[in-house]
Amino acid sequence: MSTVGDTDRSAVETAAMRRALELAANGPARGVNPRVGCVILSPAGEVLAEGWHRGAGTAHAEVDALGRLAEHQSASGATAVVTLEPCNHTGRTGPCAEALIEAGVARVVYAVADPGEHSAGGAERLRDAGVDVAGGLLAEAAEDFLGDWLFAARHRRPYVTVKWAASLDGRAAAADGTSQWITGPAARLDVHRRRAEHDAIGVGTGTVLADDPSLTARGPEGELLDAQPVPVVFGRRPVPEGAALTRHPHAIIAVDGRDLAADLHDLAKRGIRSLFVEGGPTLASAFIAAGHADELLVYLAPALLGGGRLAVGDLGITTIGEARRYDFTAIERLGDDVLLVAHPISRRAPRSSTIATEGN
Amino acid sequence: MSTVGDTDRSAVETAAMRRALELAANGPARGVNPRVGCVILSPAGEVLAEGWHRGAGTAHAEVDALGRLAEHQSASGATAVVTLEPCNHTGRTGPCAEALIEAGVARVVYAVADPGEHSAGGAERLRDAGVDVAGGLLAEAAEDFLGDWLFAARHRRPYVTVKWAASLDGRAAAADGTSQWITGPAARLDVHRRRAEHDAIGVGTGTVLADDPSLTARGPEGELLDAQPVPVVFGRRPVPEGAALTRHPHAIIAVDGRDLAADLHDLAKRGIRSLFVEGGPTLASAFIAAGHADELLVYLAPALLGGGRLAVGDLGITTIGEARRYDFTAIERLGDDVLLVAHPISRRAPRSSTIATEGN
Repeated sequence: MSTVGDTDRSAVETAAMRRALELAANGPARGVNPRVGCVILSPAGEVLAEGWHRGAGTAHAEVDALGRLAEHQSASGATAVVTLEPCNHTGRTGPCAEALIEAGVARVVYAVADPGEHSAGGAERLRDAGVDVAGGLLAEAAEDFLGDWLFAARHRRPYVTVKWAASLDGRAAAADGTSQWITGPAARLDVHRRRAEHDAIGVGTGTVLADDPSLTARGPEGELLDAQPVPVVFGRRPVPEGAALTRHPHAIIAVDGRDLAADLHDLAKRGIRSLFVEGGPTLASAFIAAGHADELLVYLAPALLGGGRLAVGDLGITTIGEARRYDFTAIERLGDDVLLVAHPISRRAPRSSTIATEGN
Repeated sequence: MSTVGDTDRSAVETAAMRRALELAANGPARGVNPRVGCVILSPAGEVLAEGWHRGAGTAHAEVDALGRLAEHQSASGATAVVTLEPCNHTGRTGPCAEALIEAGVARVVYAVADPGEHSAGGAERLRDAGVDVAGGLLAEAAEDFLGDWLFAARHRRPYVTVKWAASLDGRAAAADGTSQWITGPAARLDVHRRRAEHDAIGVGTGTVLADDPSLTARGPEGELLDAQPVPVVFGRRPVPEGAALTRHPHAIIAVDGRDLAADLHDLAKRGIRSLFVEGGPTLASAFIAAGHADELLVYLAPALLGGGRLAVGDLGITTIGEARRYDFTAIERLGDDVLLVAHPISRRAPRSSTIATEGN
């Protein structure tokens, strides 16, 4: 059997990893499981089979690829190139590490280590079985690709974007509570576009009761966009029967709101990778105070309101040294308004979508 | 005597007006009087004499120019090209209209009409005496050049810039009053540069007592800049004897602060054409609420503070329709911070300095 040299092998495996990332993109973008792709290479470096994961309950990418080998082919001595470290977890499907060992795979190359609480350890299991394992190939591209899934898997909670619209003096409404519209149509469209980019949208029960929001992602004509965030209501008061939220395309998830860390952990377990927190100063302030704001979107209108209806309430900060510090990572003009995007100083712009829309 | 044709005359007078603007720039940039330049042209279009105003108590530009005619020359039948309508007012000097008539000038061309309460009417006086008068030549350039003087003369008050620095949630300080430094060095330098561009700097007595500010315009090493704004203290409490303000290069002007319109009118009469309002949320809010903010400079730090120390206080606004609306005319990054410049919608960026520094 012919084998390839080291330099050739590296080039062949890199090409296979690029292909595996393409395959991964065929999978569903939302849900509990990550999108993973796999390419099986013969010892000579030829592509024997390709596979990808089609969503929870279906075969993982490695198993999918092994199942697509032609009848006369064997994975014995083959290399599996996979975008994510093979899992070591028996869930609805068996562990991939085991499947690769049983198939006689001699080498496994992966991009990103599995951050899963229960699924990690696949590389170790493979090595224990004598398989040659290499991690980190095209890791950066794979991390970008995995995006919010990776964030949620690593932090055991969704990536949280906290958004508010305010006047230049930080007010969310006038003294009588009126706020329509502080910002203009371009800012509102931008909000809807970003709602659609998140798995879920969070709102406090106070805002549900006061404003009866629909929390859908809509286009310029009010039409529903293709992707809709799941509405998550934080708080103990029930959503009224006739509320607009009850007509949302997705069923409401109700969480207690007293322990945000626990609520977020719960949402991650339900497959919510990103949460857009929109609903009310109380909820926004709670996320900020708890250190759970990974991104701030502040839409500022060129207007002044004065008065006490603040966009951000008390944060428990006593002195200037305790200020929560961020970096401005993007500043955009949206019609008459300005959008300021900020990230905690230690956690710069992990969402590729934010980087892509950075303005001047 | 040869005379010039209409087309030639227009070109010659335009060139003379450009020269008159150059001459005007020799005058002092600050004070009660405007900078004015004048060129006397012979009937054939030759330059007979040039003049400019050197400041209050000295000859106006027209009289200065007439005084510089050579002994054998006469202004009889001449054209006076002057950047501002000749005055019709006997102040420390006689009215320029009268002087031009007496000198036998046949034609007067000016750029901008005199907006002065007492000095206007010169063109009418000249026409009554049979002089040919044309206004508006290079009016835009002359208005730009006159800048704040023209604003102050037209509105009988200085051009008012209201500045504040705040966290992204609109707080000027933490709960315990600490605020040093919300914004970084680049923002602070920008503030000092703009202080130097204003005739005066306004502060409330509350801020004087709480913060003991020096209100000087300083450079990166803390050195005093060449131009210093006159400190104006608004309020009824006296400035303490040992206060930093007492060591300011300019003497303090103290005004009552209860009737801002009257205070501003008073400042304009003292030759204050532009006022930089910096000192404290109470004073800033009072200027905004009274409609006396011609420009807002909002320095926003990428930080959140929460709490009740707001940069802008109550503005007497009840409902969203009463919001004070502005236009964002410039957005600049200054180090880690952002500067938002806004102008009332009906009054766009009248200061040329602001236009010149517009960012991205």
